[in-house]
Order: sequence, then structure tokens, then C-alpha cells
Amino acid sequence: MSDLTHLNTRGEAHMVDIGEKQATHRMAIAEGRIVMEASTREALLAGNLAKGDALATARIAGIMAAKRTAEVIPLCHPLPLSHLDVELTALDEPMAMHCQVRAETRGATGVEMEALNGVQAALLTVYDMCKALDRGMRIEGVQLVHKSGGRSGEWNR
Amino acid sequence: MSDLTHLNTRGEAHMVDIGEKQATHRMAIAEGRIVMEASTREALLAGNLAKGDALATARIAGIMAAKRTAEVIPLCHPLPLSHLDVELTALDEPMAMHCQVRAETRGATGVEMEALNGVQAALLTVYDMCKALDRGMRIEGVQLVHKSGGRSGEWNR
Amino acid sequence: MSDLTHLNTRGEAHMVDIGEKQATHRMAIAEGRIVMEASTREALLAGNLAKGDALATARIAGIMAAKRTAEVIPLCHPLPLSHLDVELTALDEPMAMHCQVRAETRGATGVEMEALNGVQAALLTVYDMCKALDRGMRIEGVQLVHKSGGRSGEWNR
Amino acid sequence: MSDLTHLNTRGEAHMVDIGEKQATHRMAIAEGRIVMEASTREALLAGNLAKGDALATARIAGIMAAKRTAEVIPLCHPLPLSHLDVELTALDEPMAMHCQVRAETRGATGVEMEALNGVQAALLTVYDMCKALDRGMRIEGVQLVHKSGGRSGEWNR
Amino acid sequence: MSDLTHLNTRGEAHMVDIGEKQATHRMAIAEGRIVMEASTREALLAGNLAKGDALATARIAGIMAAKRTAEVIPLCHPLPLSHLDVELTALDEPMAMHCQVRAETRGATGVEMEALNGVQAALLTVYDMCKALDRGMRIEGVQLVHKSGGRSGEWNR
Amino acid sequence: MSDLTHLNTRGEAHMVDIGEKQATHRMAIAEGRIVMEASTREALLAGNLAKGDALATARIAGIMAAKRTAEVIPLCHPLPLSHLDVELTALDEPMAMHCQVRAETRGATGVEMEALNGVQAALLTVYDMCKALDRGMRIEGVQLVHKSGGRSGEWNR
Repeated sequence: MSDLTHLNTRGEAHMVDIGEKQATHRMAIAEGRIVMEASTREALLAGNLAKGDALATARIAGIMAAKRTAEVIPLCHPLPLSHLDVELTALDEPMAMHCQVRAETRGATGVEMEALNGVQAALLTVYDMCKALDRGMRIEGVQLVHKSGGRSGEWNR
Repeated sequence: MSDLTHLNTRGEAHMVDIGEKQATHRMAIAEGRIVMEASTREALLAGNLAKGDALATARIAGIMAAKRTAEVIPLCHPLPLSHLDVELTALDEPMAMHCQVRAETRGATGVEMEALNGVQAALLTVYDMCKALDRGMRIEGVQLVHKSGGRSGEWNR
Repeated sequence: MSDLTHLNTRGEAHMVDIGEKQATHRMAIAEGRIVMEASTREALLAGNLAKGDALATARIAGIMAAKRTAEVIPLCHPLPLSHLDVELTALDEPMAMHCQVRAETRGATGVEMEALNGVQAALLTVYDMCKALDRGMRIEGVQLVHKSGGRSGEWNR
Repeated sequence: MSDLTHLNTRGEAHMVDIGEKQATHRMAIAEGRIVMEASTREALLAGNLAKGDALATARIAGIMAAKRTAEVIPLCHPLPLSHLDVELTALDEPMAMHCQVRAETRGATGVEMEALNGVQAALLTVYDMCKALDRGMRIEGVQLVHKSGGRSGEWNR
Repeated sequence: MSDLTHLNTRGEAHMVDIGEKQATHRMAIAEGRIVMEASTREALLAGNLAKGDALATARIAGIMAAKRTAEVIPLCHPLPLSHLDVELTALDEPMAMHCQVRAETRGATGVEMEALNGVQAALLTVYDMCKALDRGMRIEGVQLVHKSGGRSGEWNR
Repeated sequence: MSDLTHLNTRGEAHMVDIGEKQATHRMAIAEGRIVMEASTREALLAGNLAKGDALATARIAGIMAAKRTAEVIPLCHPLPLSHLDVELTALDEPMAMHCQVRAETRGATGVEMEALNGVQAALLTVYDMCKALDRGMRIEGVQLVHKSGGRSGEWNR
């Protein structure tokens, strides 16, 4: 038998039974960053100046992806997010855009997958917007920062 | 006006016109890794031994996500992949699972977004499978490795 | 700061926090119409006579779209509809097909977006069915008619 | 038999055979507007000032919906858009936001459904953003403006 | 190594390379049936009499599912259907509804998966419509009937 | 009026009102099989030996499809599965692969559609993996085995 909860007693992938878990308030915060050339970031922020669409596009991508996490991650339970917020900020060391996503629900399982998936979609959208300038951008440090609610309690990095 | 191709002359996000581009053979290879505790990786590989479902789940997630990239990345053109391959291998320094995705199409625009999205989905699925053991896993180094086809020619990291 | 609930305190789009809202019975009714040539409507109704597929297709489109509203409207919360009904009727002044959708749920947020999205999908499907006859059809008067449940109480046009 | 191309010889809904049609450049422009209180529009435009997210959200919704039109409209053929542009502008008579979408492809069937669906999604997203202020907004005049390419040639309103 | 084309040389699932295959006209016909009590079928056909919605719903489900086959079948290539037709007829021995789907495309790979998936979705929709009357219905004989186009040529059952 | 619950009093398809139903624990088990040549099954099981991907792909397809059942079956209510398990076993009489899916939720409506849809997707994925060897495979006996929870109580085949 396996230590992996996502394998059943036959060693096969399954969607874990959460039927007995309590519906409680759950929250997760995840983050990540996309490292880029200084000139790329300058172009991104300048392009954003006109109407704000460059960063808004990435935020919207993060929000929409987070809602559909269970369609992408095979063994992830569907759950209705009650709150989602995506924040993109410029980082200087290294030259990067940083993304933080906060997800909340009232349900029987946690929302860390939704938060992480939102981060990845937002950062990859930044890559898409800038890729004609700089194909070498790199997504780094995608990780959970905080998690609360449910039996396992609070977790902080 | 902006240097970002994804903003139109009004500074607004749009889906770039590729109507004049040639339909040629296009290929992209992307990679990334998820860094984890030694004990987590041991459990993952042990759990995989029984039926192979642990890594297969991640590979399938990568393939299925790559096909739907244009649903997730707002300004990405839909295109029919002609080939997709996801490879997951164990890395020791640092202790990690490495993912490489190779995507191909015959079309008017490149497939780097599909390759990168496949990498992210596969790695996030590994996170999902192992998260009960180790919430601190970290996705790193998601980047393009190679790109060929189209007017911009070949690109290698 | 903004009067728009869908912008957070930084002025950025986010999915509003509904975690504290009560799960109550919610209902919304929306309507709209598609204005067309008399001859187009005659063909639509005649075509429908054979097996009923013309109007059934539009009703099904409205139902299926309403269920997926949160995939289309970026900041809309996903919610499980408990009831949905789409009604299409002929209107004579102006010559049109009228659509009314009634949506219900038991949840923490309203269902007006689902009702409106159902109306739009049903009417656009009518457009699709008839467009070879009449490209000039026009969708008009898509609006909320009634809303009840939740803290804001009942609203009627 | 029916005049409706979307019913087969048995009177049943089907997806029309376009196998013999030429793959040519196709373009469609559609428009519509959402009529609102002056104070609502003022709040929308003021809220947009901060970061631009209010209108960007609607533009992105229009783009993403247009790409997925064939998932919503039952008998619509899937086709890969080569270009999509969504424009939102303020109208004063009546007080409204106007939306215009231009869609292009190189394919065997037209893109008017994609353009119209993009208009509807963008306008409904504006409704969603403003609905806490004004439930009485109304979507009007959703219609095709221009269509070119294919055997049926150019069409202008 | 494996005889299964869907496993790569490492024995891992992948999406087969079809980049070298010719884009030709491809067609597939698939069928299946749902066996039910005589009284159930009577109720289905009687319910259909009113507006035709019962069978139309199943036909539409088959069409819409066929278009999205590559989202459901992990290693199936996305391809744009150029024609799709779903036919439902009453069978008496055994008492059943029979479904036949004909799918066509012009592309580099066959459409049998689309035809089969359309059959399954239409039959399962019949199950859904009748299940309150008869939970014991059974789907049988889902199979390919005909396939043409491409290097492997014509195949008939 | 009709005996079909999915037709409203006007004889039109609608999504039944489940607003008054109790949220209770619901479970359903469904099964089916795909009949194939002995040599095909041998190749499938041999191909599975290497890394297990052949059967894992089918299991994952079943799980992911079950979660999205309400997108495929037009009048099916969306509901969040709390548990899903897909089992594939070899049958000898007739030579086949057998699939059993067990689905559970805590909600206001049953999960038999999810279980049946999971069976169909898993079996069709087996078809896809083996179709280059054997186009004549046949899906048989897709049916409900057990259902419990809700007002209608327990049902067993």
C-alpha cells in the first residue's frame, strides 16, 4: 500500500473520499514569480500604462483558471470558491513580476490547489504577453505560503 | 503605443492577427521541476511502483492541459496539437521531479504556450498527489528550452 | 477607491468575498428577444413543426450555457443551479422570438447572471439557426425581470 | 423539409456539412450596447481609472468567450480564430457602453457567431461589474455589422 | 516496447505524432442502443410528442459532446468537425432506442472517436430523461460501423 | 402532460427543480465492459506492464469525465463529487475489459449520471488506446448497479 492519499488500496489513482469532512471556512495563499530581462519588464509596465490591460489580463487569467482547477488537476475535488484575489507586483531582485493569490471557500476540502493554479495561470499569461520580446523568461518559486481551515489546521511557510 | 504585441494600437489587450502567417511545422520543448523532501519523493516513487498511476496521472494532466491552453491563456490562439509528449524524471540535486514537454503542430503560430502549460499542469498534479505528505514543495525553473518553425526560426536556451 | 464591488481596494478586479453570506433560496428571471423578418420567423416556426428541433436546440443551449456562466463571466462565482427553465415564445410587435429564463439555487449569491446568460445563449442559437435566411436579426431588451432571495431582497422591473 | 440549413432532411438538428467549402479569409464585425443609468456609467468609468481593470475584464471576457463559441452554440462549427479585437466605448444617447468585436479566421465557415458571442460576453461582464449599483441595465442592439469572405461574399448592415 | 501506438518508446502515454499525415476527407459512422422497458419507451415517445424536446435533447447532447471529444479522451487529437449528424430511432427487438452518429472532417486523423463519443452522450442523455421511470436501462452495442479516409482506407463492420 | 420529469408542463426540456430536496449522502455504482479480440487485450495488458500508463489513462479519463458530467448531459444538475473510484479488470467470458465506477456526493440529487459517464469515458479511452489494433471493439452492458441515498432509497440491480 502507498503513503499517497491519491492512490487507493489497489494502488490506483482515485478521487479521495471527503464525504465525512466538515464544511468549514478554508483559505490558502500561494505565490510565484516570473523572472525576466529588465528591458522586458520595462516594456510590460510601460505597455500597462496606457489602459492597464497587460496586468489586468494576467489577473483575470489567474481568477478564471482558479475557478476551473478541478478540470485540470485530475484528482482535485470541485469546489465553489467564495473569494479570490490575484495580486501582481514588480520585484527587483531578481528582476521579476511576483504573483500572490488568495483563495477562500466554505467547503469540505482545502483551496491550495486553486491558489497555486491561479498563480501559474497568471504568470504564464505574463509570459505570453511578453514572449515576443524575451523567450527566456522563467517561472520560479511557485509555492504555498499559508493555509488555514479544516482538520489539519493552519500551515505557514 | 506599446512594445507588447498583445496590446493593440489603443493599448488594449487583443488576440494578435496571425492570418498572414504561414502554416509550417512548429515545435517547442519546455521544462520545469518540483522540489520536494527526499522522503516525499521516495513515497511518490514507491506509490508509483504498484500500478504506475502516480506518474501517469501527472503525464495525463500535462497532455490534457496542453490541449486546452487557449482556454486558460486569454490571448493565446487555439491550435490543434499534432504531437505531445510529457516526460517526468527524478532529479537528485536538488531532490525533485523534473518535467519536460515537447509539443508540435502544423499551424500559423508557435506552440511554446502549450508546452509550458503542459509542464505546469503536470508539476501541479505531482504537488496534488503528494501534498498530504509535504505542503512545502516548490515549482521551479519553468522555462522554454527549444522552439523551432515559423518566421522567428530556431531558438535554444 | 471604487463604487464597483468587483474592484478590490487596490482598484484591481477580484472575485468578491461571499463567505459570510447566507445560503438561502435565490431566484432570478431574465428576458430578451431577437427581432427578425416576418419571413424568417415563419421559416423558423415551420422548420420547428417537423420534429421541434429548432426551438429545442435554443432551449438546450440556454440551459447548458446557464450552468457554465462562471466560466464565461470572469468574476462570477460558480454556483450549482437547482432549477432552470427556458421559454421561447413568438412576439408580433416587433416580429420576434422572446426568451424568458428562470433560474434558482440555494446558495450564497444570486443567480441573475445565470438567467441572463441563458437568455443570451438561447437567442444567439436562434440567430445561428436562421442566419442563412436573415443576417440582419437583432437581439434586444436583454434584462433582469425579477430577483429574490438574499440580503438585498426582492427586485422587480 | 425546412428552409433552415440547421435541420437535416428528417427535420432534425444537425451540424451542417462544410466539407466542400473553401478555406478562405473570413471576417465579421458585430456590435451591441448596454444601457445604464448615468450614475452607473460614471462609477464604471471612475472605477476603471485606478488600474483599468473594469473595462479590461470585459474585453478579456469577450475574447475568451469568442474562442469557445462552438461550445455554447450547439450547431456552430469549431474554428480557430486568427484575430480578435474587442472595443468598448462610452455612448451618450442613450447613456450606454458600446461594444464592437472584430473576428477573423482562415477557414471554411464564417465567424459571425464568434463576433456576436464576444459582444454578448463582454456586455454581460459589464452588467456583472455594475449590477450592485444598477440591476436595471439592459443589453440592446446586438447585431452583425459586417461580414466578408466565403461564397456569400460581403454583407454590410 | 508496446504494440499500443498510444505508448511511446518509454512505455508512457503520449499523444501520437500525426504531423506527417495527410489532411484528407475522413468519415466515421458509429452506433449503439439503450435497452429499456416497453413502458419506458412508450413514455419517452409520448413525452416527445408534445414539443419534440425529449429526442432533440439527446441529439443536441450527441452533437455537442462529439465536438469536445478531445477534452474527454486524453490522447485524442483535437480536430474541427466539418459535419455531424445524430439519428435516434426506435428498435423493437430488443425494446430500445438506437443511435447512429456520422462524423466528418478534413484533417490528419480519423473521426471515429468523435462518432463514438457522440453516440454515448446521446444514449446517456436518453437514460437521464427516463431514469425516474426505469433505472435498469442498459447501453449496448456501442461500436464503429464504418470508417473511411486516410492511409488505413475504408473499414466496414 | 408527460411522465418524463425532464419535460415541464409545456412539454419542453427543463432542468428539474431540486431546491426542496434534502442534501444527503448519495452513492451510485455503475459498470460496463469493452469486448475485444484476445490478441488486443493481450497487447493492452502487455503495454500496460511497462509503466502502467495504458490502464491509468483510462482510469483518469473516467475520473475527469465524471466530474464534468453536467457539461455533457444537458439536463443534469451540477454537483460536487466527494469521492470517485474507477476500477478496470480483465474479463474472460467474453474477452473484455470491465469497468466499475463508484461515485459519491453529499447533495440534493443522485450521482448515477456521474458514475455512468465515468464508465463510458474510461471504456472509450480503452477503445482509443487499442483502436489501431482492433477497430471492431464493442462497448456493452453500461448500466447502473447500485444507488443509495435520497428519497427514492436504495436500488440494486
